[in-house]
Amino acid sequence: MGNYKLVLCYDGSRYAGWQRQGNAENTIQHRVEQTLSRVLSEPVQISGCGRTDAGVHARMQVCSFRSANLSDPEETLSQLRKYLPEDIGAVSLTEAPDRFHARLSCREKTYRYRVWHTDAPNVFERKYVYPFPEPLDLSAVRKAADALEGTHDFAGFSTGHTKKSTVRTVRRILLNDDGQELTLSFTGDGFLYHMVRIMTGTLLEAGLGRKSAADIADVFLKKDRSLAGFTAPAQGLILWEIQY
Amino acid sequence: MGNYKLVLCYDGSRYAGWQRQGNAENTIQHRVEQTLSRVLSEPVQISGCGRTDAGVHARMQVCSFRSANLSDPEETLSQLRKYLPEDIGAVSLTEAPDRFHARLSCREKTYRYRVWHTDAPNVFERKYVYPFPEPLDLSAVRKAADALEGTHDFAGFSTGHTKKSTVRTVRRILLNDDGQELTLSFTGDGFLYHMVRIMTGTLLEAGLGRKSAADIADVFLKKDRSLAGFTAPAQGLILWEIQY
Repeated sequence: MGNYKLVLCYDGSRYAGWQRQGNAENTIQHRVEQTLSRVLSEPVQISGCGRTDAGVHARMQVCSFRSANLSDPEETLSQLRKYLPEDIGAVSLTEAPDRFHARLSCREKTYRYRVWHTDAPNVFERKYVYPFPEPLDLSAVRKAADALEGTHDFAGFSTGHTKKSTVRTVRRILLNDDGQELTLSFTGDGFLYHMVRIMTGTLLEAGLGRKSAADIADVFLKKDRSLAGFTAPAQGLILWEIQY
Repeated sequence: MGNYKLVLCYDGSRYAGWQRQGNAENTIQHRVEQTLSRVLSEPVQISGCGRTDAGVHARMQVCSFRSANLSDPEETLSQLRKYLPEDIGAVSLTEAPDRFHARLSCREKTYRYRVWHTDAPNVFERKYVYPFPEPLDLSAVRKAADALEGTHDFAGFSTGHTKKSTVRTVRRILLNDDGQELTLSFTGDGFLYHMVRIMTGTLLEAGLGRKSAADIADVFLKKDRSLAGFTAPAQGLILWEIQY
């Protein structure tokens, strides 16, 4: 069994997220596994690095899988491009070292969140930005972002329950604003369920003067979701890059 | 009755083109007239500068219309943004000189055609590019573009019959290629029905070595549509800019 690395991109708008769920056919993982299994004439299971939620996009999702039948990655890549739906793209397919695992080997991930903070229309990218036509105080956003960076218990910035550790390291949050679009880039060793979207909602509330660095410290201390900001909608979020 | 200039942008994917046609409700002109008429509580008819075909997009479509009730363009613009569908955007709305007419006053128009000439996926812009994964000889495309520029009888580069003049001036054709996307920009005083798409198909065939500058001269001479290249699909075309 060879080990392979597959890089995908996708428009998540019409999917129930990345991860296969019981009988749900409408996940990206399911569609890719189905296509790969047909192309290779063997059952294939893939592991994706980022478990994107329903409606979240990926510029670069890395997967790994094992196959006995795959002999020509170029040819399989071209078959994938032929049979995958038009909103899922196969970027590359290469042989990987035997120990490579897309999720477990991942060193850091970057997610981007795109906020469209003007009334002006953005018809061509409307599915990939979150329209939030409020004037934002960017220095307040920056201060709040500084408070989020570092190693903290992010339990209050997540939803759902887990018995595993909720400590994560957010290595850096980059802000870029061109007067119409504010892009927030979050790089870290891993992110909890909804964590990027709740950090984004919190930063936007900071930009409106409704949250401060002190409030963020309080969320870390009390681990209380209700003290953090709103959950920004899925459509503005994109899995941007993965480092190994 | 005041005279007004409205700038729109739209994703043409789900429309039967710009122009109102009998009872067809699915045109951009109809949707905008309907919305404007409601917002202004009077019947409004608009004139658009470019009559884009079904599936063609616009970054900048200029319209003019007369209204008795419009008193506050800012307010009407904001109402339009509220009530237009998400794939039609109102960019600006201003008072215009009484003699201004979006189509008749137009000095030159620029259309862009986006060709995606690689196998690599482009999921996020897939509705706005034409996938044509063939290697292109760009110097041959340039030579053919040179042959198209200028004042000619473009009857052979159009479909449909007209008794009016088919002489047009293509002021310039700009090519831009980044190795994956070739963008063709056509600027001229006006374009016949399907003309930009047939010029694009002809230029792509030139890039494949199947058409030459001599063939183009022949189309001008014989005015025979069958001698020109194929009609490139609507989705890659966008009305880019209008000069007055």
